[in-house]
This record gives sequence, C-alpha cells and structure tokens, in this order.
Amino acid sequence: MISKSKLKELAAYRLQKRCDEEAVFVVEGPKMAAEAMAVGAPVRVVCATAEWLSAHTGNTVAAEAYEVSPAELERLSNLKTPNQVWMLLDCPDNSSFIPPHSSLILALDRIQDPGNMGTLMRTADWFGVRHIVCSRDTVSCFNPKVVQATMGAIFRTRVDYVNLPEWLASCGMPVYGASLQGEPITKHLTLSTKQSVLLIGNESRGISPEAMAAVTHPVLIPNLGGTAESLNASVAAGILMYELTR
Amino acid sequence: MISKSKLKELAAYRLQKRCDEEAVFVVEGPKMAAEAMAVGAPVRVVCATAEWLSAHTGNTVAAEAYEVSPAELERLSNLKTPNQVWMLLDCPDNSSFIPPHSSLILALDRIQDPGNMGTLMRTADWFGVRHIVCSRDTVSCFNPKVVQATMGAIFRTRVDYVNLPEWLASCGMPVYGASLQGEPITKHLTLSTKQSVLLIGNESRGISPEAMAAVTHPVLIPNLGGTAESLNASVAAGILMYELTR
Repeated sequence: MISKSKLKELAAYRLQKRCDEEAVFVVEGPKMAAEAMAVGAPVRVVCATAEWLSAHTGNTVAAEAYEVSPAELERLSNLKTPNQVWMLLDCPDNSSFIPPHSSLILALDRIQDPGNMGTLMRTADWFGVRHIVCSRDTVSCFNPKVVQATMGAIFRTRVDYVNLPEWLASCGMPVYGASLQGEPITKHLTLSTKQSVLLIGNESRGISPEAMAAVTHPVLIPNLGGTAESLNASVAAGILMYELTR
Repeated sequence: MISKSKLKELAAYRLQKRCDEEAVFVVEGPKMAAEAMAVGAPVRVVCATAEWLSAHTGNTVAAEAYEVSPAELERLSNLKTPNQVWMLLDCPDNSSFIPPHSSLILALDRIQDPGNMGTLMRTADWFGVRHIVCSRDTVSCFNPKVVQATMGAIFRTRVDYVNLPEWLASCGMPVYGASLQGEPITKHLTLSTKQSVLLIGNESRGISPEAMAAVTHPVLIPNLGGTAESLNASVAAGILMYELTR
C-alpha cells in the first residue's frame, strides 16, 4: 500500500527538472529493474505490483518499497504501458569509475534525441565501449527515455559531459569523425593500434566546426544507393563501432 | 484560407484507420514535401503556411492547396512540432515497380516499432537496397511515424507484405538471418555472388520459428562487450547491410 501523499510526492519525479535537482533517475519494467539490482545500483524507492514484489520477497531491493495498483503505477510512470515496477535511483558519481579497457572511446557532439542517445549507449555496450564523452549540450544520459533505451547499458557505462572540442584537442588519441565529407571507412581499415576516439555529431547538423577541428580521420560510410542524404546517427555509429573494434 | 469544414475533414486523417480505408498517407515538413515533389508522387491535398506556399508559387503541387495558419496546421499534424507543410498522398500501388538491382533484398519479420521500420527503410536506401519484403504483421510503411522516419526512402522503395515463411522458402536465394544463435558475421565474409536476402526479426522476439526454417545462413554480430543482451533491430540491420553489400 502507498499513501496518497507519498504517491503524489513520487509522481513529481516525472518531471526531469525535479530529478536533476536531486540527482536521481527513474528506471521502469522488470528488465531494467533486474539490471539495476544485478549491479547493486543505489535504489532509493521501489514501487511495484503485488506480482513483482512477491517474486522478489526476501531481497532488500530498496530502503523504501511500496505495493502499488496498476492505476497508481500509471500515475508514476513515464511509459505508455507501465510495466510492473518503477524505481528511483541515485545518479552514480561515475567520475571515479574506470571502465574496462576498450580500443575505442565514443564521443558525442550535441546528440539531442533521447532514443538515439539510449541506442548509442546500448550499441557501445555491445561492442565493449564503456566510456562515452559528450558535449555539455548532449541530452542527459539520465533522461527517462534515454535510460529505458539503453537496455541496461546505463549501469555499465561511464558518461562524462565536458567541453568537447577542448577534450578532443587534448586527448592525444586518433579521432575518427563521422562526416559526409570524410574518406570511405574502408580506406581506414588499417587502424591505429592505439586507443582511438569515434566522434558522432548531431542528428541533423553533424559535428560542430569546433569539434571537427580536432578530428584526425574524417570517415564516411559509403553511400551505395546514392539517393539517401544520411544515415540515422545511431545506425552510423553502430556501423563505425563495428568496423573500428573488430 | 481553409474552411472549418475542410479542416475538420482533413484532420480526420490523423487516424491511421481513415488513411488505410482510403489508401492514402500523410507526409509533413519541407524536407519530406520536397522528396514527394521530386519523384512526382500523387499529392491529393497540400496544406501549408503562407511562407511555404509563396516559396512554391508556380508549381502545381496538388489538385487541392490551402493556406493554413500555424494553429490550423497543428490540428492536422501528427508531429509534436508541426513544420510548415502537410500533404495527403495516394499510397502507390508499387506491385509493378521494379526496384533497381541490388545484391540484397531486406526481409522483415514482425517489426513493430514505427521508428525502427522507418530507420530500416532509410538505412536500406543508403545501401541501395530498395526492395523490402515484410511479414503481414509488420507495421505499415505508410504509418505516419514510419513515413517521417524514412527521410524520403518511402518514395524510392518497394515494400511488399506477404506470407513471409512461404516467400522465404520459395525465393531460391541464400537467406542471411540475424540471430543470437548465428555464426559470427565475419565467418561469412565470402559471400555468394548471387542475390541474397537479409532477414531481420522482431525487436524483442527475433525471427519466428517458421521464418527461421528458411534461413540458410544464421549470422551474429560478435558481442565484444559480453554484457549487452542484444542490439537494436535497426542498428543490427545497418551493420549487416553494410557487411553484405560491400
């Protein structure tokens, strides 16, 4: 059971601003809840249906746990179809988290679409790329739509928000930048054995001139059809991560 | 100017059912409108702001054209941010359209998400893959969210909805099927010079057993990270199309 006042208090976290102020974020659904528990993420509050709770009796999931009805879950949820469990977690301070070594770091310049951001994190996770460096105006990785689209990668990835042109210029690594003016990626198959950076730009505007100045290898996925203007940012990033990590 | 009754009549096309009944679809925004005009698509009605119309005076864009205010455009639009122009088009009967030759045909089994479907069409277009064969329960390519996500590929692609397991079994081509139980894609680099089919399955359930029975080459994109459960369907398809068309 949950009191009306507690439900109202928790429903306020549907506002991103409220989450940002308290440095918390929301995950929903059994799959994401399982991912959070698997890594021992700091869960402040869990609200779940009787069904989900009974499947997790004996586990101390969170300091506060409430059984909620489907109607109550709907009041909390950001999803079109609320799904059994809602959790409020502290945003990790991952500045001390050292991601496992990968030949690649992903850099994101002004990615705006939450679905793209989450898919980029999910794809990076697949290829073992667990360090992502973003321009400050890239969408927050704790945005609820981003979190859900990561399919759990949010719990395994270090995401830093920095002055990206400065970071790129001083990182001392080869920087591959996805650009319609780049060289076909196949020409770059002899990759540096050094750790490298893959830079992906904004969905419609691409990489900013300031960040492009730090790109050492502008690369292009050959446009075999000849008519499409561009690829979706997360598809392009997926192809380039596949090519650069193999 | 547009009458109240005409606006009400056209606003009814926000319902997919209404569009399906009349075999029409909606495109929005200057970019998609330009794509429609470039291929001479059969535009029934155009509603646009004075700004857009004045930039297109002299062009017979459609039999019916109306100037609309931003508020009127908002009543018609499926978009969060309506963008200058709304068009109603006849769905092409593309059963006679022979797409340009490509080494690859894309087959889609039960793709549900409109964003994925549109991105799959956009990515296929980039790689010159202009023939897509779908199971009957795949989302309609004329769904407004699909249309917008294609970024114009809707006007360059033949999409057939068929009994997919039957079609695959009788197509006489090698069928590459994306499957977590497949062989790593790199082992298949010596591709058949014959035309081939790439089969992509449902976002969460993958390829159905009936369709899988027709797969001659189950393929997997190596999971270098080892923790992510899967890739997004359009990202996986993008990587496989890149690999299979080069």
